Amino acid sequence: MHTPALLRLRPAGAAADEEVAVEMPVALTINGISQAIMLATPADLEDFALGFGIAEGWFASRHELLDVEVSAHPEGLELAMTVTGACEQRLKQRRRTLAGRTGCGLCGIESLAQLTAVHPGPVTPPELASDALARAATALPAAQPLNARCGGLHAAAWCRPDGELVLAREDVGRHNALDKLCGALARRGERAQNGFVLMSSRASLELVHKAAMSGIGLLACTSAPSSLAIATAQHLGLQLWAFVRGDRATRYA
Amino acid sequence: MHTPALLRLRPAGAAADEEVAVEMPVALTINGISQAIMLATPADLEDFALGFGIAEGWFASRHELLDVEVSAHPEGLELAMTVTGACEQRLKQRRRTLAGRTGCGLCGIESLAQLTAVHPGPVTPPELASDALARAATALPAAQPLNARCGGLHAAAWCRPDGELVLAREDVGRHNALDKLCGALARRGERAQNGFVLMSSRASLELVHKAAMSGIGLLACTSAPSSLAIATAQHLGLQLWAFVRGDRATRYA
Repeated sequence: MHTPALLRLRPAGAAADEEVAVEMPVALTINGISQAIMLATPADLEDFALGFGIAEGWFASRHELLDVEVSAHPEGLELAMTVTGACEQRLKQRRRTLAGRTGCGLCGIESLAQLTAVHPGPVTPPELASDALARAATALPAAQPLNARCGGLHAAAWCRPDGELVLAREDVGRHNALDKLCGALARRGERAQNGFVLMSSRASLELVHKAAMSGIGLLACTSAPSSLAIATAQHLGLQLWAFVRGDRATRYA
Repeated sequence: MHTPALLRLRPAGAAADEEVAVEMPVALTINGISQAIMLATPADLEDFALGFGIAEGWFASRHELLDVEVSAHPEGLELAMTVTGACEQRLKQRRRTLAGRTGCGLCGIESLAQLTAVHPGPVTPPELASDALARAATALPAAQPLNARCGGLHAAAWCRPDGELVLAREDVGRHNALDKLCGALARRGERAQNGFVLMSSRASLELVHKAAMSGIGLLACTSAPSSLAIATAQHLGLQLWAFVRGDRATRYA
């Protein structure tokens, strides 16, 4: 089935139609059990399912995800994932452990950390060519076809150490865009750690975390970093660049 | 206690310090029970507590929130809210109802809708002066002092129908910025429906929803709208403007 990523409509008082980015609820289920519901742009959904699952620590490898079936419901889309028996057992075990740990007050932060931050291991940044960031930044707009048509979408691009932009994914949410990119890399069997990621957004904690979960050792963003993104990058050994614009860039970790 | 909203640090290879926006875990507790943990910029936290609670439907009025105490923990900040007995009873009741409704697959979406979308009623847009959006957009940068220093922060501003910018709040997250603004308006006893909100971001579903929960009938954003933001605005009777830049703007609902 196919749900369009853009929607045509006529703004009030306008003479012609315009396109807007579609954002809709996407439910991720594993062997029939609901795992998460996200708002996302309905494009590259198989990439999204795998990449989101890798970031959440659901899958030890891409081979644990056997199948993704996309279906439309009145409330949104469902990505029904089928996983191996070993993966299903591990997820069941984890849910049981988590259920016993929800708590009050700041205990909640412990639970949150365990829910979202299946802690990634340390990563190793690739050695970049001196013009790699500038070269990737120049190539980025052409890798954002949806955004060029209607605006409002972020992009995540994976580039080789010489700055060659290999693959990009778009979404209204920057985290979704990175999940889609990481899923696409895994589906191709591409070794993500051999390149770096350029994002059309600010650098937040979650982006650093998601990149590291895929083994990516260098994250570059076109806008500002947050303090938590910098601290997490330092902790993981991830090289963090921000304000990547033209031939300028600042390294924060 | 005071936690700075900006942090000074020296980027790699730089000759001078720079400032970056602080983003940290903020746990919201009500009468000792954890309600939510958000990543936010530690500024205007009392506004945030009230505004977030209004958007979530926790408080029937600002008078139900009796006190907010901010304290620092190793993992982040805690906003310990004290509420009236009637409010506490209602929240307990709601938690019991919700607990029985979590389900599998797309049932999850029903639960999600009930968790986040305490459905706002229909709203009424104010009548704007013809240059109101342009006037507010011109005033916005001066109302973003944190963003001017380090970038990476969004702003939400409340303006009168003639375009006068009255009040603005900043945060690394656009939803947090709007929560802070709505909380600040409520704390002042300002009738939010008598003005409109201008956001330095794209227009997403959650922003439309949060605005409507505070009775705001007109939302204007500097960037693109999503399909779900438009559909929700239409459903609620909220007037939605996007691409507000200079003296241009497009009305989508």
